[in-house]
Amino acid sequence: MINRLTIIGLGLLGGSIGLAVKKHLSHCQVTGCAHRDGSLKAAKETGAIRDWTLDPAIAVREADLVILCTPVSRIPQWIERIAPHLKPGAIVTDVGSTKTAIVEAGERLIRSPAHFVGSHPMAGSEQKGVAVARADLFADAACIVTHTTQTDPIAADAVEAFWQTLGCRIVRHTPVDHDRLVALVSHLPHAVASALVAVQETASLDLHGRGFLDSTRIAAGDPELWRDIFIENRGNLVSSIDLLTRELFQLSSLLKMNDARAIQEWLAKHALRRSKL
Amino acid sequence: MINRLTIIGLGLLGGSIGLAVKKHLSHCQVTGCAHRDGSLKAAKETGAIRDWTLDPAIAVREADLVILCTPVSRIPQWIERIAPHLKPGAIVTDVGSTKTAIVEAGERLIRSPAHFVGSHPMAGSEQKGVAVARADLFADAACIVTHTTQTDPIAADAVEAFWQTLGCRIVRHTPVDHDRLVALVSHLPHAVASALVAVQETASLDLHGRGFLDSTRIAAGDPELWRDIFIENRGNLVSSIDLLTRELFQLSSLLKMNDARAIQEWLAKHALRRSKL
Repeated sequence: MINRLTIIGLGLLGGSIGLAVKKHLSHCQVTGCAHRDGSLKAAKETGAIRDWTLDPAIAVREADLVILCTPVSRIPQWIERIAPHLKPGAIVTDVGSTKTAIVEAGERLIRSPAHFVGSHPMAGSEQKGVAVARADLFADAACIVTHTTQTDPIAADAVEAFWQTLGCRIVRHTPVDHDRLVALVSHLPHAVASALVAVQETASLDLHGRGFLDSTRIAAGDPELWRDIFIENRGNLVSSIDLLTRELFQLSSLLKMNDARAIQEWLAKHALRRSKL
Repeated sequence: MINRLTIIGLGLLGGSIGLAVKKHLSHCQVTGCAHRDGSLKAAKETGAIRDWTLDPAIAVREADLVILCTPVSRIPQWIERIAPHLKPGAIVTDVGSTKTAIVEAGERLIRSPAHFVGSHPMAGSEQKGVAVARADLFADAACIVTHTTQTDPIAADAVEAFWQTLGCRIVRHTPVDHDRLVALVSHLPHAVASALVAVQETASLDLHGRGFLDSTRIAAGDPELWRDIFIENRGNLVSSIDLLTRELFQLSSLLKMNDARAIQEWLAKHALRRSKL
């Protein structure tokens, strides 16, 4: 039973968790913690948290569940800061878009009778900050929960139940599989959206329709946040870019051969797959 | 003054023009024509057209303006069919996503005192058919009107005024410039969206969030329609794919060098450009 929740990092995701908990787990007392008080005061005002502190030790000492919602590059150091202050049985999770390094740090630094389980709810926005947080951000979103040989099954159950309460659909993966799959379905589309913007002339950009706007919306996302994700998952992202460019070169070959039938088959195959989502 | 309008091809675009004309140019009598009566009957029922015929000669003989809204590969043959039956002073335009071959055919086959002016309103949907037509499809859309050495200035003015009445913003280009610019801002994003779907594993697709949905929405578009566009504009599309893959290889190099600062600059530059749209 999660009666006390601590959210570390009150941006879009941390703030939305707070609002969703208020709605779906109203008995739960939510404390906020961050390295600066600006976002904490804003989160308190929107009702995403009940109280806050800048002191990690105070923030987590009574928490049943701690959720790390900072940029991915800062999660390991927050794990170090809170690990000594967790109560027995406390569970720590995160919302980071990469998992291998974070889960490694979590499992190394947080030891039984406390537990670390990695999470990644596939929800977000190109906008950032607690001001755009919403209670329904997680509704119908996939949430990957990482399972390793060290994962405590009871802690994993609790983390999965928590995300389900917020509306998520749970998918289990190892951290390594997570990082490969999310490179394909999230990090690659972000890189491609930026590249699509990059290659535009001023005159072509002036002609943009709704198709271009939708296909590049994510390119407007926070550059620092995405720099961290790209750097953290760079091996998988490079492989994903290779796959995509190979696919585009195949299309180029069909175009050069003027092979209308093969181009239609290529388009039809992927149109069907996309329309099923 | 356009008192009689003939729309040839009653799909999403033809149907939306009919509905928009009914709203903004209610004095105008709209006739529909197509190679089959199914879409014409549906268009008549939605109010997009007032009457219809399968006979091109009857369809255009009293028309002040004829708009060709069929797939791009069929526009030249429709120009051939209607050209002998136009009244003096009639203007013919089209909504094709490629312009070089269409404008060449239009200017060759439609001679003074009738006139051809190419158009391309940047509006559409991944859905097709008159059932999804909307009167506001063209609101705030860019509409490219092609100008060549042969373009009649009075006819071009009339075509531009027509699209402005429907809510479009006019941009003038030569057919050659149009095809290069639209390859970048429309045909390339479609190819990339399909390729993004193509490279997904079943397990990665299962994790898709809103970012993936938005960035691949256009991949669900009609494969036959897009095959025609890709084939027609294949030279420019191949060049655009080259530009994009070069941009992605540059990103790959930065990732391999673990160059966080350069990656952030790359992301920030394009995020800023995108957020201004």
